[in-house]
Amino acid sequence: MTTALIYLDPDSNLNLQAQIRQKMVEAIMLGTFPEGRRLPSSRKLAEQLGVARNTVVLAYQQLVDEGYLLSRERSGLYVNEKIRQDRVGYQSKLTQRSEMSAKWRQRFKGSLTPGQDFHCPPNWQQYPFPFIEGQFDHSLYPVKEWREASRLALGIKEINDWAGETGEVDDPMLIEQIRTKILPRRGIQARPEEILITVGTQQALYLVAELLVDSTVAVAIEEPGYPDMRRLLAQRGAPLVYQPVDEHGITVDEKLDGCQLIYVTPSHQTPTAVTMSMERREQLLAKAAEMDALIIEDDFEFESNYLTQPHPALRSIDTEDRVIYMSCLSKVLAPGLRLGFMVAAPEVINEARKLRRLIVRHPPLNNQRTAAFFLSLGHYDTFLMHLHQIFEERWIALRRALNYYMLFYVEMAPAQGGTSLWVRGPEDLDVKYVAEEAAKRGILIEPIDHYYATSNAPKNCFRIGVTGIPHNRIREGVLQLRQLFHDLTSNKTETFATARGEHLTGEALVDALQNKTMMSVVAYGEPCTIEICSGGELVGKAGFADEDEDSGKWWIENECWHRQWQRWAWGETGIYDVRQEGDVIKLFDQDGWLIDRYIAQVETSGAENAN
Amino acid sequence: MTTALIYLDPDSNLNLQAQIRQKMVEAIMLGTFPEGRRLPSSRKLAEQLGVARNTVVLAYQQLVDEGYLLSRERSGLYVNEKIRQDRVGYQSKLTQRSEMSAKWRQRFKGSLTPGQDFHCPPNWQQYPFPFIEGQFDHSLYPVKEWREASRLALGIKEINDWAGETGEVDDPMLIEQIRTKILPRRGIQARPEEILITVGTQQALYLVAELLVDSTVAVAIEEPGYPDMRRLLAQRGAPLVYQPVDEHGITVDEKLDGCQLIYVTPSHQTPTAVTMSMERREQLLAKAAEMDALIIEDDFEFESNYLTQPHPALRSIDTEDRVIYMSCLSKVLAPGLRLGFMVAAPEVINEARKLRRLIVRHPPLNNQRTAAFFLSLGHYDTFLMHLHQIFEERWIALRRALNYYMLFYVEMAPAQGGTSLWVRGPEDLDVKYVAEEAAKRGILIEPIDHYYATSNAPKNCFRIGVTGIPHNRIREGVLQLRQLFHDLTSNKTETFATARGEHLTGEALVDALQNKTMMSVVAYGEPCTIEICSGGELVGKAGFADEDEDSGKWWIENECWHRQWQRWAWGETGIYDVRQEGDVIKLFDQDGWLIDRYIAQVETSGAENAN
Repeated sequence: MTTALIYLDPDSNLNLQAQIRQKMVEAIMLGTFPEGRRLPSSRKLAEQLGVARNTVVLAYQQLVDEGYLLSRERSGLYVNEKIRQDRVGYQSKLTQRSEMSAKWRQRFKGSLTPGQDFHCPPNWQQYPFPFIEGQFDHSLYPVKEWREASRLALGIKEINDWAGETGEVDDPMLIEQIRTKILPRRGIQARPEEILITVGTQQALYLVAELLVDSTVAVAIEEPGYPDMRRLLAQRGAPLVYQPVDEHGITVDEKLDGCQLIYVTPSHQTPTAVTMSMERREQLLAKAAEMDALIIEDDFEFESNYLTQPHPALRSIDTEDRVIYMSCLSKVLAPGLRLGFMVAAPEVINEARKLRRLIVRHPPLNNQRTAAFFLSLGHYDTFLMHLHQIFEERWIALRRALNYYMLFYVEMAPAQGGTSLWVRGPEDLDVKYVAEEAAKRGILIEPIDHYYATSNAPKNCFRIGVTGIPHNRIREGVLQLRQLFHDLTSNKTETFATARGEHLTGEALVDALQNKTMMSVVAYGEPCTIEICSGGELVGKAGFADEDEDSGKWWIENECWHRQWQRWAWGETGIYDVRQEGDVIKLFDQDGWLIDRYIAQVETSGAENAN
Repeated sequence: MTTALIYLDPDSNLNLQAQIRQKMVEAIMLGTFPEGRRLPSSRKLAEQLGVARNTVVLAYQQLVDEGYLLSRERSGLYVNEKIRQDRVGYQSKLTQRSEMSAKWRQRFKGSLTPGQDFHCPPNWQQYPFPFIEGQFDHSLYPVKEWREASRLALGIKEINDWAGETGEVDDPMLIEQIRTKILPRRGIQARPEEILITVGTQQALYLVAELLVDSTVAVAIEEPGYPDMRRLLAQRGAPLVYQPVDEHGITVDEKLDGCQLIYVTPSHQTPTAVTMSMERREQLLAKAAEMDALIIEDDFEFESNYLTQPHPALRSIDTEDRVIYMSCLSKVLAPGLRLGFMVAAPEVINEARKLRRLIVRHPPLNNQRTAAFFLSLGHYDTFLMHLHQIFEERWIALRRALNYYMLFYVEMAPAQGGTSLWVRGPEDLDVKYVAEEAAKRGILIEPIDHYYATSNAPKNCFRIGVTGIPHNRIREGVLQLRQLFHDLTSNKTETFATARGEHLTGEALVDALQNKTMMSVVAYGEPCTIEICSGGELVGKAGFADEDEDSGKWWIENECWHRQWQRWAWGETGIYDVRQEGDVIKLFDQDGWLIDRYIAQVETSGAENAN
């Protein structure tokens, strides 16, 4: 018998010793060990499992101590048959399992259909390029500061405050901190009775759905949108209106007529990351007023805009108390802590509080107090700023790398910040297949069909995020992704070898470029112009209002165009072979990849002066 | 203007400084401070509020730092009018409040009616005699051990385990600890997939109600019983069968016919503390099998019997997987932590897990891991034993004091342990009134009408518990309670002064007692006999099987009967005046209180031998 008695799960959270112990107990109780048979020696099992021998020794010792195994001198370890006999009830239950199983299922009132959600591999951190949105990067956790807050919350006086069960009251210290430190960031002023702590944003959504929704209440939700909210509303039997999202957020039109409730994610729309424009916010509030509808504003990660200032929350510009605002502390404080809050009219909070009492009483008070200390010590503000900086760096890096390397393979939905991008790939690629292939190459990207309720999900869109990938992996990850797309699509971008057009060299190369203004479009859909001045200067302008400018130098060397920007293209020297096909100038890097395609539309003013 | 600008709430959980700050900000934002008026000096406000001056100084300083107050040199502190101007939105919302309020209420689907629950005063610990069940006595919290477990759970590797959001998976380490350390105590064997962690027992109840109950499912619940479960079931529209509780627990009879679900608290019935007998457990399971009904076993505080061994949980003797078991860690680990669990067939757990995901995702994982360490370090077992000992001591003390001092005012429901007693007082007393009067004298007892769904609530019953009162206060508390009952009832127990019957002295006293066996009944309804032997010995036997025995000495001194037991009556010397009325011997203590009433039924065997 050379096969191992047990197998370890590489993804298990248990340490090896606990895992060995757990698996052995399971195997013993299930009777899968041959009776009276000697167990493999610790040395042998350690070899089979690929673990240190001492790990097995300790696990074995624990099993002996607990009576699962018997040690017979000079003979070895055996399963203690008695332990199995003492637990016959356990065995007999197993045999009845299948028939009971069917009985149980009949009893459920409206069983929940399992979601077709994307499941991030639990060992995502072992992938070199985890472009996965929302996975917690533990290296960013404020360990020292959270420990400090925990220590404070473990003081005798504090324990006395939080240990008792309050029935329905939250920690007043946390309410005060949220009221004075977090809400003003979003422009929201609230009194304590307008705030309720929840077990994550999810519970706020659940409470509101239970309170306000039944089969008579039409609810508008974003399409694509947050699947668990759709599931919640469906469970309540609500007629749903799937409202499309454009570059300004949820569309506001007559399709909303008759809706009593509208669920939106204005800061960074889930899943497209589009920020709702100020104009659209006002339209939405006006429409809600016209229909006497209420709005649920899910501000799950606040608004972190890198390209513009954040907009105020809907609730802060709502003069009619129509908006129920909800958010959470998970952006800074691990999602595993499950700390969220909602802000609404006192009547809503009061009713939600009564319901919450029946569901969980209240979120754990030790965590409430710890978070309150964390906030009151200023750590929250510090870390929010810190994360903002880190995510900005990563997000900008991702956007730039996609733009530089994959300009001809992808388009991006317009986004001003956040931690993800919504990307459209080549028409002929089914992203589900691409994502599987990508995973094989160490790249994780998220397919998006589960965000759609209707059959409108585009086959070639995907989501790509930066919460889990370090800055220094992003560029290489995008390079790998380009190779993947190139390998999989039949609409391959031309390479230097395959491209049409004349290879420009010598004088022709200079003439084609010098004193020209080159027109292009970036991957996020904005125009871009580059003036190539005769003095060797470059002036680059991108965006509809030229909001992103850069300058640089160019020269010709070895028949290649050399270009170096101050910031663009990482400030590195780019070396390009140039082809011309009609009006179109094409740049290829030294590996033959097409990097840019320009139209030389007008001569630069510098050229005019020269004439 | 001598009236204080603000008032402090003695029941607030905030410290004084935070409270002053909070109230000042509220007053500032609401505009209740006269504009441009100088604030009272810190000395004056401290005097008005009765707090230390430094407390006010610090609160003022904070308000200055935050911009609410302005400090003008040599003049004092003023409200910063600018802060009010910057927040006009806040003011304008307040004026619309009342009209919005009505609008909101119309929107709620099935608003919850507020319960008529007993509300323990938040400052209950300031009462000298808090005979209140279930209030958390922070002096019993395992501070050092919980801190140790917290510290371990704050290790880098651990944070990596719990910080992320798992969607629906619990901490495998906690599951394993519950499976191997807690459930075996209750005789329950379970596999990991049969266990779900919940945000307190309350969430387990909610999940099960949502899964298994709708308006077509008749549910039997105990009467009297747990009000929040009744509320939960009523919210689901279930027809309820209110099943009476007798001295063996919930009654099992044809009233249960047609019920698909039965909710019980077998360990210590809520609220009567009666333990379900083994025979009744088997009857209940047989009845459930006959009707194909399911059982919810709420084992909220496990079973802590001081008079007998604990019974196995219903789930452990259930061979048909009909029992959904739930309990929590709050007995040892503060209720404020909200950590519970349920054990049921994998199908039920699987479905409950899907629902839990929509409600809260999962209970906070940092607390799960901390509790897992607490358990794995053996602290849970140690503290459970420790608490068992403490509560046993208190519970026995309460029971004995009630029996000694209030024998003629109260009867107790039969209980074998737990932390409370169900007590019936004088017929003419309405406990709601008694509880109010008791509170005025520093005694807290709990009225019980909210435990009844029907109008059967006895007016003169109440609940009295030991979780919040130290052992050394119990006897004095019962003495005070006796005085209260004596003052309030019109059926006053006779005192030495008012009692009928001859005051026995001299030879008559000796003759009435010596060589007699005295028959009595104790306050928990069991018989009691005392043999008064001629040699000065006493032999006492109490209980239906004489299970509680004691011996002692008696003598006569100063015309009083002196009695000293080894254990009974605190082993102290009792000095009694004796009256005889017909067959009845009455003992009065030196304050004139009636302590015992015996019938001298037979001569003792010692007396026979003497003849």
